[in-house]
This record gives sequence, C-alpha cells and structure tokens, in this order.
Amino acid sequence: MILRSAPASPFGRKVKMAAHIVGVIDRIKIVNADTLNAEDDLRQQNPLGKIPTLILDNGKVLYDSRVIVEYIDHLGGGGRLIPAHGDDRYDVLVMQSLADGLMDAAILQIYEMRFRAEDRREPKWIAHQAGKVDRGLAALEAHPPHLSPVSHIGTVSLACALGYLDFRFEGAWRKNHPRLVAWLDDFAARVPSFALTAPH
Amino acid sequence: MILRSAPASPFGRKVKMAAHIVGVIDRIKIVNADTLNAEDDLRQQNPLGKIPTLILDNGKVLYDSRVIVEYIDHLGGGGRLIPAHGDDRYDVLVMQSLADGLMDAAILQIYEMRFRAEDRREPKWIAHQAGKVDRGLAALEAHPPHLSPVSHIGTVSLACALGYLDFRFEGAWRKNHPRLVAWLDDFAARVPSFALTAPH
Repeated sequence: MILRSAPASPFGRKVKMAAHIVGVIDRIKIVNADTLNAEDDLRQQNPLGKIPTLILDNGKVLYDSRVIVEYIDHLGGGGRLIPAHGDDRYDVLVMQSLADGLMDAAILQIYEMRFRAEDRREPKWIAHQAGKVDRGLAALEAHPPHLSPVSHIGTVSLACALGYLDFRFEGAWRKNHPRLVAWLDDFAARVPSFALTAPH
Repeated sequence: MILRSAPASPFGRKVKMAAHIVGVIDRIKIVNADTLNAEDDLRQQNPLGKIPTLILDNGKVLYDSRVIVEYIDHLGGGGRLIPAHGDDRYDVLVMQSLADGLMDAAILQIYEMRFRAEDRREPKWIAHQAGKVDRGLAALEAHPPHLSPVSHIGTVSLACALGYLDFRFEGAWRKNHPRLVAWLDDFAARVPSFALTAPH
C-alpha cells in the first residue's frame, strides 16, 4: 500500500500512528505529496487533492483519514482503534470528530497566512477558527479523556491535534491547559508511535 | 432527539435524509442553529460550534454528520445506509468522503464572500477550492455512481453536494456534467426525502 501524506500533516500522522498501533506500518510505503502542486499525481489519485490518501495494492484508493483509519483497523482484525459497537464506539468517534475539528480550524489559520498577503487576511475569520480551538481545548481541559484503553482513534486523534498546535503555534495552548498537558505527556509515554511520527 | 441544523446546510440535509430513509425522522426534533451567533447554545452543545449536531435523549451529543449518520443507521438496525463490511463498505465511505469534500470546498467559497470585504478575498484560495469541486465533478461525470442500491450514504451525500451547488452556485455545474445531471434526476425521482429536505 502507498500512503500519500506529508511530514507536517496531522491527519497523515493519525493514519501513520494507526498503522503503527495495529502493526501494519511495514506494509505501507509513505510517498510524500504536495497538495499545492498541480503536477503532483495526488490529484489523479484523489480528486480533492487532499492528504492522507491510501492506494491499495489492487489500485483502489481510500480517503479521507477516517476511512483509512477504519480500513487499517479492519486489517488488524477490527475493534482495536474503533470499538465495534455500543456507547464506546460513539464516544470514540465523537472524540475523533472533535480532534479533527481542532485540526481543521488550526489548519485554516495556517492557510490564512500561507495563501494571503497580509492585507488580505481577515481577523474575523481567524478569530472564528481560533474560537473553535479555544472552546474545544476548554472542553477537553475540563474533562481530559480517560487513557484506558490508551490508544483508540479518539485519543490518537487528540494527540495529533495537540501535536499540531505545538508544531505550528509554538505550544501556546500549553499555558492554560495544565491537565491536557499532563494528559499528552502520559499518552506520549505510553504510545511510542506518537514520537515516531512527530511532524518536521 | 434534537438535531441542531440549518435549512441551508448540506451536511444537515445529509443527516435529515438519512433519518427519513431509515424511518426515524419522527423521533428527531429539528432546532435551527446559527453557527455565527456566539449566543446560540450550539457552542455549549458542540465546542466546535458546527452543524449538524445531534443531542440524544440521554443528553449525549453526537457530531459530526458522519458520526450522526452512523448512529442513525444503527437505530435502523444497521447496514441500511452503510454496508456493514466488505469492499462495498469502503466504496460507500469513500463516496461520502468525496461528497463531503465537495461540500467543504463549496462552503469555503461561500464563506469567502460572507466573511470578507471584496478587497480581502483571495482569488488563489477561491481557485484552490473551486479546483477541488471541478476535479471531483469530473471524476463523478466519468463514472456516475450506480443507483443499486439507490440510497446508501455515498449516494445521499453526493445528492446533497450537488443540491448545494444548485442552491449556492446557481447550478452552474449542470452545463458540463450531463451524466451527473441525469444521475441526480434519477436519484431524486427514487428518493423522496431529497425533495423533502431541499435547502431554503
């Protein structure tokens, strides 16, 4: 299998961690993609031109990260990353949605810098996205997720979201979220693939 | 259950259609939400402040649309909207991802107008999002999805995406995608909830 991703992508990191945890990382060849380069064949593989995108050995293409993670969980026998049913399943999936939403809101702030000259940046838009991050972090700080079991896709996604805030926003979130900092430290100590997939 | 949504939201429409198809729409009270109003209690229900958000009778909150759709499918016994396993499951989930990506790229273009004065709009960003829509539509025009079975979450999501392009972009996509127009006509004729949930 070929995974189109990029070293800085938090959604790509989620998929890589999932593959480590389930034990299928050795079956995946990672090929970097440049989502802003129209010549990159990513856009033939996934018309949305987004990463991560997974190309199976039979040529089928899977995206986005949630679908890939589900497939990876399936390769590992199922139920390791996403509980097969019951309340736990929805708790984990909502945690993933919250973390994905944090990542999306953080990425949109980065794109605001990357795509626009300073006079085309819109403080209202940046504040709207930053508000999502702030409220999400506040909710998580009030109730940090349990770490038992430690590495389902909810906690993995959250760790990737926080890692992205560290990487792109100089860890400013750490100042006001001590319980979440402790949570991430604990998670990182228990899940080696978090360090192995750090953005660069 | 309470569904926070808005009449124009394509992701909300997807959830409403799912509830119609599975036969649980009567158990859902729809309460409009204004994602741009900080006073709307949506932001207490879902820290991301996004719609659709579903509040269960026991107080649990589910988001985003994919998680809600999965729960609705579960309420209906499972396997109606999302095949339980096998290749079909991934085909349907990828189709949903593609349609969700079309909606996201279309919504970002609308937000560009809504959040910014004209001199803060960035043609490169608009073109980047429009490119996703164009390539997605081209891929679908080349291979319109089968309609047997007709209303799984892949086809439902695609219909919502095309409906949103009709609603917000005056159906400009129709000119160059005759097979996809025929596909949507066929889908709409067979799935009454499409008309019942039309944006306004």
